[in-house]
Order: sequence, then structure tokens, then C-alpha cells
Amino acid sequence: MSAHDIGRQASRRRGPAEEARTLVSSVTVAALATAGEDGAPWCSIVVYGPTRDGNPVLLVQTDSEHGRNLLRDPRASLAINEPGAPGDPLDRPRITLAGSVTRPQGQNYEDALDAHCVAVPAARLYAGWEDQLLCVLEVQQVRWVAGLAATDALSRDEYRGAEPDPTAPVAAKATAQLNRDHPEGLLAVAREFAGARGAVSAYCTGIDRYGIDLSCTGAGQSAPARALFDDPLAGAADVRPATLELVRRAKALGG
Amino acid sequence: MSAHDIGRQASRRRGPAEEARTLVSSVTVAALATAGEDGAPWCSIVVYGPTRDGNPVLLVQTDSEHGRNLLRDPRASLAINEPGAPGDPLDRPRITLAGSVTRPQGQNYEDALDAHCVAVPAARLYAGWEDQLLCVLEVQQVRWVAGLAATDALSRDEYRGAEPDPTAPVAAKATAQLNRDHPEGLLAVAREFAGARGAVSAYCTGIDRYGIDLSCTGAGQSAPARALFDDPLAGAADVRPATLELVRRAKALGG
Repeated sequence: MSAHDIGRQASRRRGPAEEARTLVSSVTVAALATAGEDGAPWCSIVVYGPTRDGNPVLLVQTDSEHGRNLLRDPRASLAINEPGAPGDPLDRPRITLAGSVTRPQGQNYEDALDAHCVAVPAARLYAGWEDQLLCVLEVQQVRWVAGLAATDALSRDEYRGAEPDPTAPVAAKATAQLNRDHPEGLLAVAREFAGARGAVSAYCTGIDRYGIDLSCTGAGQSAPARALFDDPLAGAADVRPATLELVRRAKALGG
Repeated sequence: MSAHDIGRQASRRRGPAEEARTLVSSVTVAALATAGEDGAPWCSIVVYGPTRDGNPVLLVQTDSEHGRNLLRDPRASLAINEPGAPGDPLDRPRITLAGSVTRPQGQNYEDALDAHCVAVPAARLYAGWEDQLLCVLEVQQVRWVAGLAATDALSRDEYRGAEPDPTAPVAAKATAQLNRDHPEGLLAVAREFAGARGAVSAYCTGIDRYGIDLSCTGAGQSAPARALFDDPLAGAADVRPATLELVRRAKALGG
């Protein structure tokens, strides 16, 4: 691989729309903003599952504040963040989705219920009750905040067209496994595939469908580096074989 | 202690307003609902610190969506939940606060900034910048949800008048310590002070300023029980001595 190839490939990572869709698919708890009778905003905690288009499906009680609000005014907004993530909450990824809720019918109802039940399996038991309102937030506006001073407005089509990273559910565990089991392999990957020829140690800081992020040390410094998979991974099951293959090839090259 | 005393005392635990104030004081990340120019709700993630009255102090950028919204329409609502808590998110405590934001002046500004900076120490560095808006949500309406089908509307005065439980910040750690170091002491507490005479084991499930919650087993069953401190604890530093004293007295009685 030439230096040119490294530079070109290393820029391949999830874009804002992919990050947004991945976050929305990784979380099931959100805050919902609705408008009260007098127009005053009301914020409440809800649980959702996203449709294939990334539209969150909610199941709300019709006699709750937000249920009554939505029946009167379908405009709504959801805020989603990664609650468990460490560090400064203002420097963590988060997203606002805004639009209007619709009440799906027929097959659309079944599909929406399936999407919601991925997040809340028990909802299948009570979704049909009279006081339950299944509704889909048809996303029109997206504000993606990657961290401090890093924010993007996404168009509806950018958001819809992107795909959640299928490796996200297993990335944290696979990262920990790599660091525990393959410290020398990661150093070889850093030297052979991430351009960090002078590294004396390498630590994996993250995995996504396109590659792995490393923090390399050498000459008393530390610096980030990135190595890419040959092709984007199609699913969570590919993470372990793909990372092990990267390690194997790097070690073979490093001799 | 008579059975009557046990029954009377065991009912002493945090009420909804105290629970609400404790949750608001334990968390610093919230979702904020504001009204857009056309009245459409907008939800975003913010960081806050509460005043002594439990009014959340926010520091928002004036050029953010919610900053522009609040400058136009001060009505706002915050939703707060305990993000790290395990279990079904719909069965976890959460709260909605609603009211209007005000911009404090003079000494009120300094007090509000102090309250915010407990949550975000770095805010002191940039709170004075021109694009930063320090504002206080003057709470008018409170919806407290303890879990599934357990919800309370609190009056403004009930909310303001309650005190956050000062033991909350250390309760989880103290609970773990008790279970690790004093399994026999907890069994004595269950038998002597919690009315569970036939218990063969006891596990501490929570500590608050009024007492400790236990899960007791015996005769192939498990059941909750509760033992109270003589007086409500005044601070976090009292938790360890008070629980150890309870254990000591129970063991002495149990012989």
C-alpha cells in the first residue's frame, strides 16, 4: 500500500448521517418534546424503536401529557444521546429529530409495531389496548451534534439514505478483546497498515465497519492512527474475523 | 421496639417530592423542550445544575436552536432520568419540570452560575461570553414518574419545599460495602429491626437518609424488608457510621 493509498483510505469513516443513524439504532430511550394546549413545550422520557428509514416508533398512553399533546398537535421532536458514554456530556454525540407523528394503518402498523418491539419486546402485549397510541415520528429535520462545537444539520434525505453501522452493537466488546489478546498484533497493524512505522505500542480505541482506530505511542508522543478493512463489514458477525485477519496479515508483513 | 413501632416506622421513606428533588440533584444531563418560531417543539440535550429551590440553571448558546427559541419564548420543560440505572427504562424514576426561564441579574446571577458550575465546573470560564445565556427554569409544574403506572403531579410548593436526600451520592457504594463486609450483620438487622424474624439471609438493596432496604430469604421465599435509622441522616458522611451502628446493635441483640 502506498502512502497515497493510506491517506485516501484512512479518511474513510462514518459520515455524520451514518453516525446519526447509528446512534438512533444503538439507543432505545429518548426525550420527547410535544406542545401543550397553550403551546407550552412539554418534555418527557419515552422508549422507541426506529423503522428502516430511521423514523422512531413510539407507543404512548393517550391519557399521558404527551399522549394528549400528540393527539391535539402531531408536531414532535426527539433528543437522543448515549447515556452510558463516559466523559464530558457536552462532548458526546447526540441528536435532535423533529417532524410530525403519524398513526400507521394496516401493514404499516404491523411494521411499525415490529420496529418498536425490537426496543420493547413486551409492548406486543399491550400495544393493542385502547389507551395505547402507536405512532411514527416522520423525521423532517435533523440536528447532529458530534461533540463540542461540532454540529451538522442533516437533510431528511441524507438521514433516511444513510445506514446504521451494523457493527456498532459489538464494537466495544471487540475493541476490549483486541487490546487484551493482541497487543503485538495491534502494533503490527499500526506499523504496516496505519502508517505509524515508528510506533512502539498501539492501543485500539474503536472499531467501525470501515476500520479500526488506534492510539499509537513512540518517541515519547502519542498520536491517533487508523487502519481500514479491505471492504466495509456487512454485519456484526464480521468484526471478529476481519480484525483477526488484519492482525494476521500485519504480523506476516512485519516478519 | 413493638410490632406497631416497626409498622409505623417502616413506612418512613422518601416521599414523591423528596424523590423528585433527589433525582434532580443526582443528575446533570437533561433534555430540554422549547418552542420553535412556528410553535413546533424542539428537543435537545443540555447540562444543568439545580438552585436550592430545585430550579435547573442552564447555560445555552444564543445561536443554538434552543437558545434562539428561549430568547423568543421563555416557556420550557426539562425531562430528567437516571441514565445509568439498570432494568426496564419505563420502570425507572424520571421527572418532567415545566415553567419559564428567567435571566437572573446581580447576586442572583452569581448564585445561579454557582449552581450551574457544580454540574459543569468549566462553565465558569465561558459563562460571561456574549453568546452564552445563563437562565433559570422557574419550575411551575412537576410530573414525577416513579415507574410503571406510578406517577404523581407535584405542586410547585411541594417540589420547592422538599429537600434532596443528602445521602444519595454515596448510597450505592455504601450498599455494596455493607453486602460485602457485613452479611451476618445484615441478617441480624433483618431479624431484629426489620421484623423478618425467620430470615436466613439478608441483602441490602438500598440506603437512604431514613433507613435501609433489605431483601430477605427464608422458607424458600424472598421478601423485602426495611430497617430505619433512629433519626434521618443529615449528610453523606453519616451513612457509614449509621449503618455500622445499626449492624452493631442488631448483632448485640441477636446474641
